[in-house]
Amino acid sequence: MLKETLQQGQQLTDLALERLIPTATERPSSIHKAMRHSVFAGGKRIRPILCMEAARMVAGSLPTGVEDLGSALEMLHTYSLIHDDLPALDNDDLRRGRPTCHKVFGEALAILAGDALQTRAYEVLARLNCPPDARVRIIEEIAHGTGTIDGMIGGQVVDLESEHAKPDLPTLEYIHRSKTAALIAASVVTGGLYAGASEEQVSKLRSFGQSIGLAFQIVDDVLDVTQTSEQLGKTAGKDTAAEKATYPSLFGIDVSIKKADALVGAAFVALESFGSRAETLKSLAKFLVERKS
Amino acid sequence: MLKETLQQGQQLTDLALERLIPTATERPSSIHKAMRHSVFAGGKRIRPILCMEAARMVAGSLPTGVEDLGSALEMLHTYSLIHDDLPALDNDDLRRGRPTCHKVFGEALAILAGDALQTRAYEVLARLNCPPDARVRIIEEIAHGTGTIDGMIGGQVVDLESEHAKPDLPTLEYIHRSKTAALIAASVVTGGLYAGASEEQVSKLRSFGQSIGLAFQIVDDVLDVTQTSEQLGKTAGKDTAAEKATYPSLFGIDVSIKKADALVGAAFVALESFGSRAETLKSLAKFLVERKS
Repeated sequence: MLKETLQQGQQLTDLALERLIPTATERPSSIHKAMRHSVFAGGKRIRPILCMEAARMVAGSLPTGVEDLGSALEMLHTYSLIHDDLPALDNDDLRRGRPTCHKVFGEALAILAGDALQTRAYEVLARLNCPPDARVRIIEEIAHGTGTIDGMIGGQVVDLESEHAKPDLPTLEYIHRSKTAALIAASVVTGGLYAGASEEQVSKLRSFGQSIGLAFQIVDDVLDVTQTSEQLGKTAGKDTAAEKATYPSLFGIDVSIKKADALVGAAFVALESFGSRAETLKSLAKFLVERKS
Repeated sequence: MLKETLQQGQQLTDLALERLIPTATERPSSIHKAMRHSVFAGGKRIRPILCMEAARMVAGSLPTGVEDLGSALEMLHTYSLIHDDLPALDNDDLRRGRPTCHKVFGEALAILAGDALQTRAYEVLARLNCPPDARVRIIEEIAHGTGTIDGMIGGQVVDLESEHAKPDLPTLEYIHRSKTAALIAASVVTGGLYAGASEEQVSKLRSFGQSIGLAFQIVDDVLDVTQTSEQLGKTAGKDTAAEKATYPSLFGIDVSIKKADALVGAAFVALESFGSRAETLKSLAKFLVERKS
């Protein structure tokens, strides 16, 4: 059942991305190749799947065209990975089991490919198949969740500035909440908005998304310690090498896993009023903390 | 009269940017400082002014809140400058008479500051004070004009790939049309959309914007040859050093200036149906080709 949800979600997302990102036959060929190199590198499509399942839960069935919203979220996630991997930032050679964008296409094109994925995401969002007032709300939500104030870029900045500095728990939580949980929460919330969720439903979706977003990042940090680069498809042990404060480094692995489990419990509570319709999102949440890569 | 338009436009834009870009008192301080360093470096605010004057022409008076649209355009222009100046791209130390963003804040923060200005621009656009259907149209127009297909990033890619390669005239025109004219045209078109322009008016504004956008870039290339770095506030003679094909390098300075003048003539024709209301936009167009920096 969960396996089907994941497979179907990945397939729907990949088809939409294939349709929405220009091909190498369109000029300028090089930038479209670079965008596609990073987008089609076998990502898990977690944000699109969470988004689509939130929409399905609110609407009762999968709303037409919601995969375009999902694919825009994946473009934004991929742009952040391309820029994070640049030599001036994390300087990483491996991502999703492939050489990183700048290793293949050079730094200039990697910077522009990241920029272009962000730009293209907003073009797709502006054309979504839902009423204009829902579209502007979705755009606002996503721009805020990926911005500097409690959003993805803000978290990335504090993360960079905290290397070799052993931040305290409030700083660590700020980084996790902003860098990872904000876009995951925005994915769930905008899926709901696409499906016409009420304000009350939006607020419950936000609470769910924030909890699983934090849990997701804690598990990511645990896997960074316990798994190999081969298992992860990206460089393992990076946090320890960069002397980053993480949940495992502050509290050990067992306590970290317990914290992630508790967050999933809180996420379940947030979805109570959706009743049995919430089953798929709940099993996705469990999958996110039990995954091994 | 023109001087007043420019001063008033710059002032309105700067006040909106001041209000819309987070200050250094907001966390994370460093990224907001980096964004502001590049945004408040004394730019001419040409795109916002063209946008606002197009809106004024269509509506008959300046529509409330159009300066927020103008400031989003300036954020997008500034993000492109920050990334263009990076060592992996044009590797430039001087912009708008100041050290470039990465010279002051380092490459990592400059990449993220560019990203954040793009993100913030879309958040501002999603909240504009015009009906949601106009807002999504404006966002689509701007995302397209700054994207890879005949837009800003596309032009930048072909420009980079044409260095030391002496491109032919069609390639040169593709670069100018995409890299510069597309965002200038989008500025004029979205100003019109904000003011409720008809499809016919939008198409005339687009034609005007494309002509003056091309003229603007030709004059930019002429100034790169004829002016000093001090006069320009950015490094002069860059095109010659990079062996870039430009109008002046292909046709000489006199023919280039004549071409720019002819484009301004075409731009005037596009505005004919607006009658005397078009006077300010026309004088702006003349100013753009007669400027010395």
